[in-house]
Amino acid sequence: MEYASMSKEQLLDLQEKLQKQYQEYCNMGLNLDLSRGKPGRDQVDLCNDMLKVVQTGEDCICSNGLDCRNYGVLDGIPEAKRLFADLLGIPEANILVGGNSSLNLMYDSVVRALIYGVYGGNGPWSRQGKLKFLCPAPGYDRHFAITESLGFELITVGMTESGPDMDAVEALVRDPAVKGIWCCPKYSNPDGYTYSDETVRRLANLKPASRDFRIFWDNAYAVHDLYEDRHDELLDIFTECKKVGSEDMVYYFASTSKISFPGSGVAIMAASENNLRQIKPVMNIQTIGHDKINQIRHVKYFGNADGIRRRMKELAALIRPKFDIAFRVLEEEFAGTGAARWTRPNGGYFIGLYTSDGCAKHAYQLAKKAGVVLTTVGATYPYGNDLRDSNIRIAPTFPSHEDLELAMHVLGTCVKLAAIEKQLIIRFS
Amino acid sequence: MEYASMSKEQLLDLQEKLQKQYQEYCNMGLNLDLSRGKPGRDQVDLCNDMLKVVQTGEDCICSNGLDCRNYGVLDGIPEAKRLFADLLGIPEANILVGGNSSLNLMYDSVVRALIYGVYGGNGPWSRQGKLKFLCPAPGYDRHFAITESLGFELITVGMTESGPDMDAVEALVRDPAVKGIWCCPKYSNPDGYTYSDETVRRLANLKPASRDFRIFWDNAYAVHDLYEDRHDELLDIFTECKKVGSEDMVYYFASTSKISFPGSGVAIMAASENNLRQIKPVMNIQTIGHDKINQIRHVKYFGNADGIRRRMKELAALIRPKFDIAFRVLEEEFAGTGAARWTRPNGGYFIGLYTSDGCAKHAYQLAKKAGVVLTTVGATYPYGNDLRDSNIRIAPTFPSHEDLELAMHVLGTCVKLAAIEKQLIIRFS
Repeated sequence: MEYASMSKEQLLDLQEKLQKQYQEYCNMGLNLDLSRGKPGRDQVDLCNDMLKVVQTGEDCICSNGLDCRNYGVLDGIPEAKRLFADLLGIPEANILVGGNSSLNLMYDSVVRALIYGVYGGNGPWSRQGKLKFLCPAPGYDRHFAITESLGFELITVGMTESGPDMDAVEALVRDPAVKGIWCCPKYSNPDGYTYSDETVRRLANLKPASRDFRIFWDNAYAVHDLYEDRHDELLDIFTECKKVGSEDMVYYFASTSKISFPGSGVAIMAASENNLRQIKPVMNIQTIGHDKINQIRHVKYFGNADGIRRRMKELAALIRPKFDIAFRVLEEEFAGTGAARWTRPNGGYFIGLYTSDGCAKHAYQLAKKAGVVLTTVGATYPYGNDLRDSNIRIAPTFPSHEDLELAMHVLGTCVKLAAIEKQLIIRFS
Repeated sequence: MEYASMSKEQLLDLQEKLQKQYQEYCNMGLNLDLSRGKPGRDQVDLCNDMLKVVQTGEDCICSNGLDCRNYGVLDGIPEAKRLFADLLGIPEANILVGGNSSLNLMYDSVVRALIYGVYGGNGPWSRQGKLKFLCPAPGYDRHFAITESLGFELITVGMTESGPDMDAVEALVRDPAVKGIWCCPKYSNPDGYTYSDETVRRLANLKPASRDFRIFWDNAYAVHDLYEDRHDELLDIFTECKKVGSEDMVYYFASTSKISFPGSGVAIMAASENNLRQIKPVMNIQTIGHDKINQIRHVKYFGNADGIRRRMKELAALIRPKFDIAFRVLEEEFAGTGAARWTRPNGGYFIGLYTSDGCAKHAYQLAKKAGVVLTTVGATYPYGNDLRDSNIRIAPTFPSHEDLELAMHVLGTCVKLAAIEKQLIIRFS
């Protein structure tokens, strides 16, 4: 029975039962974590042989004779560009291979725009007065943190199953202070939604008032499918942009952080030739070059894009059962209660859980007291502000099956307790 | 006989002989390079076994249980901090381990100051109007390039055998627009000079008008001695600063770029606790963390600071003969001519050659035509402007012994031809 239809007595009765259950969890002295979008140890173990593929000086020599052990090459060794080009369907000429962190490439791209401006733009953003950035939400807190830290006003845009609310985006970019939009277009963080073809096309066809406007296309989960039989398909943004001549509007990012080793992977940026011509000279002031041995290590280990695709299936085989546990427990806990809804992504790293409005923070506190750490409520919104107090990001990849099952049940109990208390207050007090 | 004392006939006679020699070099179709501060292949070969020390998942586990293969830790694994602390004589608590490039840490430090300001300063440098930076010259072109690119006016300060002209520095920092100074304090690039104790103390005792002022202490050649029997000793800047409470004035940088693999080494920044408390939250917005597997790879390979010191002796054994070839040929070519003087560093990567004023560019062009690439004349000065047109940076580490000997002779001939032409013009035309 839905909580909203229960009588006061029924609610109090259920509350008492759940309180007992909650107290039992509290007495267990748990220390569980559902907050981190972090691979499990079994996932990183899969990649251990990468540590063995570059063993000698000869292993460090590129096909063009370049010695990865020494100085030289700013934007990536040719075979690394080719690997990512094949994997992502982007021409090699548009790829710049960076260091270990795509987030770092994103941060540096905003900083570069602030200090030097962007190709075809109106000069340094820092001299253009008020700056705004569009933040489809719920979204990735670290995206929002970059632009907040760098002084932008964050404009929240609603996130839907087909991507950002494009009516809102099209209206907002008429403001020349709006310089960009954060996009996690495939298996979005945290909902796991993939932008529809229409959304990608409307983004490619945007007519922003500011020539500086850039789409920050963080394709973090480009090849991170969970199931053999159903994948989301994302249109290639560059292809759509080229049809209308807007390819300078896109900064594209990806990395192997959730393919090889998080923190010791390889990140890339892809952009139009015009953009790269502006970016590379600045990067050449910033660094002599990125770690080429790690680039060739990735190339030798995976061999080619198919090697990465095979690995993604092996990783999915490890992650899928965890998502399935999460989905099953969510169903067990919430079916028929109306106390929560959740997303059912086909890939990525997260599940978006939505409690009844006004219940997420309360549930978070209850879970914390019971020893279960959740992603900070609100973190998925600009300024940490979830106006509905509803979204809880579930990251099921790191815990063991047992820990995950238990943590999900604790979460279920906490959300239900919060929902019942809300019912009691709004309907019976 | 000194060229300055030769008669016109003697000069013309010598010119003819040197022209013949020069023509012979030109006819050889040479393709030699004395411009790059790049280790030779034999040097990087020395480090090949580093590729083999981290082979398994277990090898990636830190002493505190942290798994280097996964996310976690912004500022470096404990054993990497300890390694650099022992090597450089800096407390672990003051060390932040970064990515592969100390230059990147320097660039980001200037950018951070521009956007966020520095600890105890007057807010973002970008809002403080005119910005100036002190550039002891000749110096490292990439230092100057960072501050030029970021909009600073570069103020040239004379470089002496004991470091920057401290009278000039002390006078210049009375200008509140002066926000910092570039220092390569040991075996300086390009002269190979080491700052005297007095210089270090006067720097530690600076009283800049601006509370924002920072000493960028790029100790790139901290342990890069060439000889067993004579080393330069550099006072520890932090120790001197602590005596007078000025430790917040120093940003310290170092890396293993010329210890392990250039481009795949580990870079560090060291700073006071006040400075680190301001820096780390910004870095935490910029990245999730640096490559920890490469950090533990370095720790496991070198073992401890003594392991690095032993390696530096092996590297010196490879580099020293190249410096000795360079010194010998310089002596053979220039002894008694007065056409050039040069530095005789006890370590580092470079020799500073000084032609007669007004001869460096001409010599550079002659060498280029003969197939010998030199560091661009002027590159060692702010804005590429060597007012004396005299300094040529010699980088002897990369070529083979044979190539180096030949290239140095070509260089000698070119500098002498330029010097004779100058004598003929200023004295006899």
